[in-house]
Amino acid sequence: MNDEHDERAGRAEHDVRDGRAERAGSDGHDEREVVVLRYGHRPGRDDRMTTHVGLTARALGADRAVFPDNAGQAAETVRDITSRFGGPFTVELRADQQAIVRGFEGVVVHLTMYGERIQDVEDEIRAAAGGDGDGDGDSDGGGGDADVDADPRDLLVVVGGEKVPWELYERADFNVGVTNQPHSEVAGLAVFLDRFFEGAELDREWTDADRRVVPRATGKEVVAADGDDSTGDDAESDTEDEGGRQSA
Amino acid sequence: MNDEHDERAGRAEHDVRDGRAERAGSDGHDEREVVVLRYGHRPGRDDRMTTHVGLTARALGADRAVFPDNAGQAAETVRDITSRFGGPFTVELRADQQAIVRGFEGVVVHLTMYGERIQDVEDEIRAAAGGDGDGDGDSDGGGGDADVDADPRDLLVVVGGEKVPWELYERADFNVGVTNQPHSEVAGLAVFLDRFFEGAELDREWTDADRRVVPRATGKEVVAADGDDSTGDDAESDTEDEGGRQSA
Repeated sequence: MNDEHDERAGRAEHDVRDGRAERAGSDGHDEREVVVLRYGHRPGRDDRMTTHVGLTARALGADRAVFPDNAGQAAETVRDITSRFGGPFTVELRADQQAIVRGFEGVVVHLTMYGERIQDVEDEIRAAAGGDGDGDGDSDGGGGDADVDADPRDLLVVVGGEKVPWELYERADFNVGVTNQPHSEVAGLAVFLDRFFEGAELDREWTDADRRVVPRATGKEVVAADGDDSTGDDAESDTEDEGGRQSA
Repeated sequence: MNDEHDERAGRAEHDVRDGRAERAGSDGHDEREVVVLRYGHRPGRDDRMTTHVGLTARALGADRAVFPDNAGQAAETVRDITSRFGGPFTVELRADQQAIVRGFEGVVVHLTMYGERIQDVEDEIRAAAGGDGDGDGDSDGGGGDADVDADPRDLLVVVGGEKVPWELYERADFNVGVTNQPHSEVAGLAVFLDRFFEGAELDREWTDADRRVVPRATGKEVVAADGDDSTGDDAESDTEDEGGRQSA
């Protein structure tokens, strides 16, 4: 914890060591890794959904996505976005998803409409992962019976695709519903991450980007990552390949 | 505002008048309508994304979705879910999307990765819509220069699909980015709604449902809306038609 606080205090004066450490400056977690695992994928039919799971994981604070090994096209799209808009963020293709979940050393959250209400368990999850953002290992809210741990623990967020096996419900430390209504695994993941990080993920800074969007009240502005201006037309052509994305 | 407070106070004792009024009891807005407009749709390719936009709008507190008139299949899926899991929620197919946006009487929010950062403008948007949840027409946070209005105003949330025309950027009262990164319009919508309603949407109660999921730490429990138990198998078969949804 001392390292973390020292780093935050010294951030304005010193270059941080690498992308992972730099990121810690913005969201306060320099040790814990947040991994999003997409469970199941049907090539063709699920390509866009799996791509959106990966892009949402990247944009909203996760460090890594794990896709089934038949989701190569979705993985390529996410890697391409990362190479242009920055990281650090990695995508892995793995055949052994059940084994990854079974053997994960950390906190496993399974997002499902049958789970406990996120508003009831989010503090407890944050406490279990040591991730309340202020580094004291305790939760801001309730969670009095939580597994409080001062050391950050890695977090695996499992997002369903095909039907998930019963074993996953049993293995998960938390089965969590973002509402108990059927909607979208992408929406559930987004709300979960925004709440888990308590909004800190929105202030993330990116490394190794070749471009950056400048927030504007009207219009589009994209600059090179070193600060040179680019054109709005350029930005359009960059994102039109995934027409439905939060892009236009 | 008095009606609203009276209704909340009397909610335990009295049946509310209709679905719309009942809903006011849980999120505190009895007059304002929140509409999600999906801009652009390519039949086939966009069916699932548009369906997920509609289901996310329904699950996370919107009153109504407007789809392009070529998105009939997505509209049917959302209506089917509403008939089983409850409402009130309606889906309209409209050909004149530009005209709807142009003539909307209320606050227009356009979600785009080029927009202002949501964390910077969410208070201002809530103030403009009179929707801070405590009925005083002011914002909980900053937004000192916001268009504060004690009367709730309708809110139109525009979610891009195909490229949106320049006019939309100009007409929108707020162009808003949920991060300035390319990710998913479904994720952007979900985070926007959760922040706009400040989580109150998660406590929504549903009317005219024929079933209800009971939150569980492990496993699946679905009961008839009048309280009788149903089976987990039934729940599975209900949702497998959209395999990728937050369902398994």
